[in-house]
Amino acid sequence: MLARVSLPTSSRVYFPKWYLKGTRASPASAGATVAAAKYINLDMRSYLNFLSWMPAALKMPDDELIQHAGLDSVVYLRIYRTGLKIFVPITILAFAVLVPLNWTNDTLETLKVVHSDIDKLSISNIPYGSKRFIAHLVMAYVFTFWTCYILMKEYQIVAKMRLRFLASEKRRPDQFTVLVRNIPSDPDESVSELVEHFFLVNHPGHYLKHQVVYNTNKLAGLVEKKKQMQNWLDYYQLKFERKAERPTTKTGFFGCSGSDVDAIDYYKSEIEKIGKEEADEHKKVMKDPKSIMPAAFVSFRSRWGAAVAAQTQQTSNPTVWLTEWAPEPRDVYWNNLSIPFVSLTVRRLIIGVAFFFLNFFYVIPIAFVQTLANVEGIEKALPFLEPFIETIPRIIGVAIPIKATFFITYVMVDGWTGVALEVLRLKAFIMFHLKNFFLVKTEKDREEAMDPGSICLYWSEPRIQLYFLLGLVYAVVTPLLLPFILVFFALAYVVYRHQIINVYNQRYESGAQFWPNVHLRIITALIVSQLLLLGLLSTKGLEEATPALLALPVLTIWFHKYCKHRYEPAFVRNPLQEVMRKDTLERARERNFDLKAYLADAYLHPVFKSNEAGKFYVADDPGAEAVIVPTKRQSRRITPVQSEDGGSGRLNLMESVHKR
Amino acid sequence: MLARVSLPTSSRVYFPKWYLKGTRASPASAGATVAAAKYINLDMRSYLNFLSWMPAALKMPDDELIQHAGLDSVVYLRIYRTGLKIFVPITILAFAVLVPLNWTNDTLETLKVVHSDIDKLSISNIPYGSKRFIAHLVMAYVFTFWTCYILMKEYQIVAKMRLRFLASEKRRPDQFTVLVRNIPSDPDESVSELVEHFFLVNHPGHYLKHQVVYNTNKLAGLVEKKKQMQNWLDYYQLKFERKAERPTTKTGFFGCSGSDVDAIDYYKSEIEKIGKEEADEHKKVMKDPKSIMPAAFVSFRSRWGAAVAAQTQQTSNPTVWLTEWAPEPRDVYWNNLSIPFVSLTVRRLIIGVAFFFLNFFYVIPIAFVQTLANVEGIEKALPFLEPFIETIPRIIGVAIPIKATFFITYVMVDGWTGVALEVLRLKAFIMFHLKNFFLVKTEKDREEAMDPGSICLYWSEPRIQLYFLLGLVYAVVTPLLLPFILVFFALAYVVYRHQIINVYNQRYESGAQFWPNVHLRIITALIVSQLLLLGLLSTKGLEEATPALLALPVLTIWFHKYCKHRYEPAFVRNPLQEVMRKDTLERARERNFDLKAYLADAYLHPVFKSNEAGKFYVADDPGAEAVIVPTKRQSRRITPVQSEDGGSGRLNLMESVHKR
Repeated sequence: MLARVSLPTSSRVYFPKWYLKGTRASPASAGATVAAAKYINLDMRSYLNFLSWMPAALKMPDDELIQHAGLDSVVYLRIYRTGLKIFVPITILAFAVLVPLNWTNDTLETLKVVHSDIDKLSISNIPYGSKRFIAHLVMAYVFTFWTCYILMKEYQIVAKMRLRFLASEKRRPDQFTVLVRNIPSDPDESVSELVEHFFLVNHPGHYLKHQVVYNTNKLAGLVEKKKQMQNWLDYYQLKFERKAERPTTKTGFFGCSGSDVDAIDYYKSEIEKIGKEEADEHKKVMKDPKSIMPAAFVSFRSRWGAAVAAQTQQTSNPTVWLTEWAPEPRDVYWNNLSIPFVSLTVRRLIIGVAFFFLNFFYVIPIAFVQTLANVEGIEKALPFLEPFIETIPRIIGVAIPIKATFFITYVMVDGWTGVALEVLRLKAFIMFHLKNFFLVKTEKDREEAMDPGSICLYWSEPRIQLYFLLGLVYAVVTPLLLPFILVFFALAYVVYRHQIINVYNQRYESGAQFWPNVHLRIITALIVSQLLLLGLLSTKGLEEATPALLALPVLTIWFHKYCKHRYEPAFVRNPLQEVMRKDTLERARERNFDLKAYLADAYLHPVFKSNEAGKFYVADDPGAEAVIVPTKRQSRRITPVQSEDGGSGRLNLMESVHKR
Repeated sequence: MLARVSLPTSSRVYFPKWYLKGTRASPASAGATVAAAKYINLDMRSYLNFLSWMPAALKMPDDELIQHAGLDSVVYLRIYRTGLKIFVPITILAFAVLVPLNWTNDTLETLKVVHSDIDKLSISNIPYGSKRFIAHLVMAYVFTFWTCYILMKEYQIVAKMRLRFLASEKRRPDQFTVLVRNIPSDPDESVSELVEHFFLVNHPGHYLKHQVVYNTNKLAGLVEKKKQMQNWLDYYQLKFERKAERPTTKTGFFGCSGSDVDAIDYYKSEIEKIGKEEADEHKKVMKDPKSIMPAAFVSFRSRWGAAVAAQTQQTSNPTVWLTEWAPEPRDVYWNNLSIPFVSLTVRRLIIGVAFFFLNFFYVIPIAFVQTLANVEGIEKALPFLEPFIETIPRIIGVAIPIKATFFITYVMVDGWTGVALEVLRLKAFIMFHLKNFFLVKTEKDREEAMDPGSICLYWSEPRIQLYFLLGLVYAVVTPLLLPFILVFFALAYVVYRHQIINVYNQRYESGAQFWPNVHLRIITALIVSQLLLLGLLSTKGLEEATPALLALPVLTIWFHKYCKHRYEPAFVRNPLQEVMRKDTLERARERNFDLKAYLADAYLHPVFKSNEAGKFYVADDPGAEAVIVPTKRQSRRITPVQSEDGGSGRLNLMESVHKR
């Protein structure tokens, strides 16, 4: 706990979330500190007492936690809670039933395989063809049913939390907006005109405005580069102020080669050069039609209109005019918006094939070598067993459970230590103090330096899943692994709860949209565990149990399908009743709200927002009066055209007819 | 061709479709005969010439055939055409490359296995571990790519045909209608009130009317029984008229036991009794709220409104208020409309488990016994081989291809003969003449007797798929089977084309909605063939080819996913652009069309339609004026209620607020 014994300024490393809350809600700055004092002990000295922060972390009720850190964080914590809920009863049952059954045999003694006492608690200690395996079979069923039951309950709770969260949410731009991708190209109209015409015609009365997406990858790169240069300039200016001597730098490779120049002048000129490039690029992006991507954010007059557009197919060609619920603005990954449909499909194929061959060429030989290694080990230790080792399946039944000791070590090293490091935030601690020492000049700089980061779901979620997999696979085989998994889940739950309350600041809010993935992965782990048990028992002389064991994955897959059908829509679709309710309430409360102004900049690329020239696209209001959509297609004004690409060819008749 | 040498009246058996066309389009009756004469030779004598009908069947162009018999029939024929397209090049290639390769070996001679000359053309004739298997491997790739290419082209063509068909379709009730299932029960409102309120609130401006679904299973049974009794009465009255002697019948078991009674009096009284029961049941159905099922057909003011309702989720609970595109009225299977969601899920589970265990307990032992039988046969014939027959995999590589002779016989007996019987229509021929002799009194009776039936897709489509499976499995293994498959496809194509033009009368039109299933099954056959080849080659000493062969099913599955994503939506969803185009055109052409009157009876159970009391449900027009939806819920008029079942609890606030 050494890192925690520190200057008061370290509270910015260990409780940055509260500072952010305070500085953000500036009028109520004091409020945040008071609220913080309610849940955390701001007196640093008390942290000398080992683990005194733990009970504090558990105090905050869920509803308040959602208010404080968002639903994503709270549901992320639920993954650990789900782990506890699944594994606590499984551990108790396994220790009550399976451990005594395994212990009271002497197969390993008789076989004289190299083994530890731990292995005597595992399934390997049961003799070939023993009737005792029926207990393992029954337990496999019990564990599967219990896991599925908890998974269903959790899915239900998370879905309910999500629905309540969405219902209670304030007005947000993504509620009114749909992301349209693969807009077909049109010889007569620009993307912007095409989008406007398409939605005016096909969603009359609902369409409000749209925002085309620009290919700003180069521009964003320039902005980023300029920022870096600015950083260097600041650094050298600081150095100059301190040392009163003009610093120099080298212009070559990472400032390591080339001739010496005055650093401040050099970076000033560089910044100026990039600034000019940036302005040119900015102009080019806005003028060149090629820099407009075939994608747009289309906003509607009501949530109902957006929900309808997001859930329906627009044209007979299902690869163009693809609509989906827009992510919230901060959650948009701009660089990827331009990837065309074909490219996406091909990328998926390549990944699929690569995944397949990686598994094929990696897992199979590894398993083969592992088996060989074990067999050789046994041959060396027990040369008289050689005749039995030949075409060797029984050995597998011994080898797999013995691997458990390795995984126990792994859980302790990777799981326990990882969690401990997480709470110590060593890297953040060092970085903050380094930055503080070298770079921080103003309060704004300090804020940037103490950026607490957010939980990287794409990184930490699969890691938890490994523990689910280990727990489920070894629950029947070597129950001794279970307590280690339990300690990991409990520790991680408390630690991450503390971190979420005091440290992390989620950058965006998806409303727990990741839960279906969590569910699917636990189900996959369950099926893997069932198949491994099937293979294991078939090498232990229990072939007749195969049908009973094969039924398990079938039932599990059916359960998954049921859950997917029952709960997944809550995470993907936007039910009309809910949005209609919100629309109606809002219309009754704020009759004259200017939605258009509210949505004006919402889906503008951040690079434009930082710029004065940002508001360059202002669409005319296709207001409540009658609108006749103009068309540029002189030649096709009267005949309806059958176009095959689902493009705008068909619009023209309606364009001339349609009024609203 | 004996059956075809018959009285002119047989034309009613062999060309009933033209009679139906004639009698239906009564003013243009002559027109149908003229049209018939264009494509078929109505002069019966010419049919003495063997197969003279064949070229006639091939004359009609596709567009006219769609007009004549509907898209379903035309696309059904495409299945055979797809078979030809896939197998003609495969056959040529297999005979050019594989047959010579197989023939120029003497493995079967050397092994002295019991074999025919046919087997010498198969893969079994290639020695263990030969390099020649590489040719089979390459051919497996070529065949897979060719099959996938044809499948994709066909999917594309059928999707286009469907879209064109839907676009050209006249106004049909199902275009405006959505089937709503799992309407939650409500203590305050009837199903009908609930449906009206729900859609008025959540689809304001679009909802037009609805038709609740009654549980008429008992009533329909009574109507059917009465019809049967009427039939018997007609029969005995005819008998009486002819013999001038009152016929008697027995009242017991199927008229075989019990006391003799006057048949005409007996059936008259029975009909009266059932008629009374029917009237009582009719009253009960209409009064008892329990006879109203939680399902309804909801119609909208525009196709756009219906398309939106069918494609969106209505409430946060995805198991209630399920909406889907309504089938066309004649295609509704009324008995099944009442099955609740849970029951459906459980039924699917039971079928899934049953399917699994059927396969498990059936296929595996059969395969085992088959293998044993072969091995024993070999042992008897070649006792010196016994030592090699022991843990026996190489034999499988010989046994599977040898089964080809059995399947060649099967194709000839089941496939060829089945098709020949189809064109002879022996059963229909006999039945028609029997009925004509015994029952037909008036022209109307004759019409009923000559009911040509329709193609049973659920029965004949899986049968075709068997031939796809056989063809794909044996394409690489025993190419000699291919010509037999080709003859089947060619024959069946011509015969069914003839039957569709001249005989069958499809009862309803789904617009080729079955094509995704056809596609999926051919893909499945392809994957089965790839896995079998994998197993086969691994027993022939070509284990190193396994990764190359494993890639095939992976690629095929990916191809299926791609096709599903690309083309399936055209068969499931209703794109907004298309419906909007139809709506707009129609609104411009027929400004004052009374849609409500048009839809009034469309989705009424047929049992009510035959009845005078049919039009008993007339909803009030929630017309174009302002509508305030009344609510019966006194207690909850003001507070919005959070209900968990997604029921109508949430409506009340909107109901009092909502105006349009």
